[in-house]
Order: sequence, then C-alpha cells, then structure tokens
Amino acid sequence: MDERFAKQLQFILELDKEKTILRQTHLTGYRRQEDDAEHAWHMAVMACLLKEYANEPFDLAKTLLMILLHDVVEIDAGDTYAYDAEAVKSQRQREEKAADRIFGLLPEDQAKEFRALFEEFDKGDTPEARYAHALDNFQPVLLNDANHGKDWRLHQVNRRQVEKRNARTHEGSEKIGQVVQAIIDRNVKKGNLLP
Amino acid sequence: MDERFAKQLQFILELDKEKTILRQTHLTGYRRQEDDAEHAWHMAVMACLLKEYANEPFDLAKTLLMILLHDVVEIDAGDTYAYDAEAVKSQRQREEKAADRIFGLLPEDQAKEFRALFEEFDKGDTPEARYAHALDNFQPVLLNDANHGKDWRLHQVNRRQVEKRNARTHEGSEKIGQVVQAIIDRNVKKGNLLP
Repeated sequence: MDERFAKQLQFILELDKEKTILRQTHLTGYRRQEDDAEHAWHMAVMACLLKEYANEPFDLAKTLLMILLHDVVEIDAGDTYAYDAEAVKSQRQREEKAADRIFGLLPEDQAKEFRALFEEFDKGDTPEARYAHALDNFQPVLLNDANHGKDWRLHQVNRRQVEKRNARTHEGSEKIGQVVQAIIDRNVKKGNLLP
Repeated sequence: MDERFAKQLQFILELDKEKTILRQTHLTGYRRQEDDAEHAWHMAVMACLLKEYANEPFDLAKTLLMILLHDVVEIDAGDTYAYDAEAVKSQRQREEKAADRIFGLLPEDQAKEFRALFEEFDKGDTPEARYAHALDNFQPVLLNDANHGKDWRLHQVNRRQVEKRNARTHEGSEKIGQVVQAIIDRNVKKGNLLP
C-alpha cells in the first residue's frame, strides 16, 4: 500500500474512537447518552432535510464535511458540556492541540483542507458555518425536548443558558431560531428549564 | 408550527432510532457492536476522504445523503447480517415496507426524493451508488481487519463470502477493491478467514 493511502487509512481508523465519546444529551426514550458520531450523523441528515430554511445560499457538500468532522477533536479533548463554564474556558486550547495531532495524521493537502474546515466551523463566519452551528444547537434541543427536558432538569439548566447557547442560531436559520425559541418557552412553562 | 416543518421534525425524531440498530461488526478495540448511525457517519467521512479513488466523476453531496440514509429502513427491518443467507432472502421485502413507512413521514416532495435516493443505492447502477457501495463494503472489512478478524472468526466466515460481498467493490473504486482483496488475502493467511 502506498504511503498516501496508508495515512488516509490511519486517519479513518483513528476516527473510530469518536464513536466512544459520549455527550450529555440522551437519545430519545432516554435509553443512553448519545455519542459524537451519532450526533454528527443526525446533524448531517438534518442539514440536507432542512436546507430550505438556511438564511443564505450555501455549499451543501462542504457543510456536510464540516458537520461530519466538527467534533473529531473531542477524541483527544473530550466532550465539553455547553453548560459547564469551567470546561468551556479551556476548551479552545485543548481542541487546538487535538486538531494538530488528529488532522496531522492525514496527507499534507488533506490535513490542511480538513483543518481549515474545522477552523471555519469554529469561527462561524461563513454561510456554511452559520448553518452548521444552527443545527449543532438545534439537534440537542430537539432530543432534550423529546425527553421532556430530563437532561436540563438533571443539570438544572436555566432559560438564559439555552438562549445564550442559541444566541446565533437565527444567523444560520431564522426559522430554526424561531422553533428553538418556541421549544425553550414551552419547556420553561413545563418547569423543565429554570426561568 | 406549520405542517411541513412538523413532518420534517417527526422524521428527524424517527431517525434517532437508527442509533439503536446494532450491526455484527464491532468497533476497533472490540469494545462493543457498532450501530447503524455510527457506520453511516464513518462511511460519509470516508466518502469525502477517499473521493480521489472513485472510478467515475460523481456528485459528492448526493452521495453523502445517499450514504447517510442507506440504512434508515433498518429501523423497522433490522440489520441483516451479510453472511446470514436466510435473512438475506427476505431482506428486500422487509426493507421496502420499512421505506414506505419511514420516508412516508416526510412532506411529499422530500419523501419522493429521499425514497428515490434509497432505491438508487439499492440498485447500485449510478456512479454515486457504485462508490457508496464500495464504501459500505470496505468499512466493515477495515474494522474487522483492525480487530484481527474476531467477528469473522466468531461467525466462521470464509474467503468466498467476503469476496462475494465485495464482488462489485471495484466497480465503485478499483483502488478500494484492490485494498479489500489484499486485506482478505492477509486474513486468510492469518487464519482469521476460512480458506
């Protein structure tokens, strides 16, 4: 096997570990915690299904790869719960180091391409990144809502925290932003989110 | 919420169940069985990473959606182990029924589009479907190889069965077809696959 293909295979096998990184969000039915690979898959289907609601024209294939890769760094850096203020502080540094190592497994051209896409997602300043972030925020809200807010109750999350996390959701999609707001309001009323 | 968005959300929540459909293949390190959502995510990243090895020009965004959806029917029909001859016989009928119900949750235009993509994958007669099938065959071979053939040993799989399953892999990608053949040969030599 040539060196290029061998490097690509090494990266593919490394990715397998993403299936063992657990998020705080539970699957519907509260069966168990969701893992990063499942979350990325779910988001990717949503990106195709809901594309009519993106605010701006965007490149779907590019967005899908961005989504598929957006949590790869958590293989080293672990999942950072959005409502854990301490962990969020060190998140950037931990994830940069992970990106160096993991994307560094790839042939140089692809390492550069994949890393750039990860940085673009992180910055959130392009139509693709804005739409991807809207979905990254929306997907756990949907699962939480379907689970009657059980994860929010467990972590005593309040309305402001979810609103802050979703502060830019409407920049990717006005429609998704509105739906998220409606779900938040409904869950505050039900007592699933603290006011 | 309008009817269209409500239908789309219902489909999105239904998809969540795919995360609980287990395959025979185990994750690297033999930690546990892989689920369908993880498999589709892994294949989708591979489709982007290995696109230079596809035999024909193809539409990446279309292929990604095809890959993301290709196992959705298993929510109702269950996973059919490729080397279980009895189950393979009834597979088509079970999966058609599942496709009717699951894609039927969507708004009509999207139900038609997604269903057509699923059928296209099933037939395997377009550049996108040929490449997607190559990856669908390659991904479990890779995991099996990384696990020293433990799943093959468990099910007493022989060389001919894996070769038959991969009979059309080279139609999607000559390169991937060659790599699969090399992995099969190596695992027969090691005694992981019966001769």
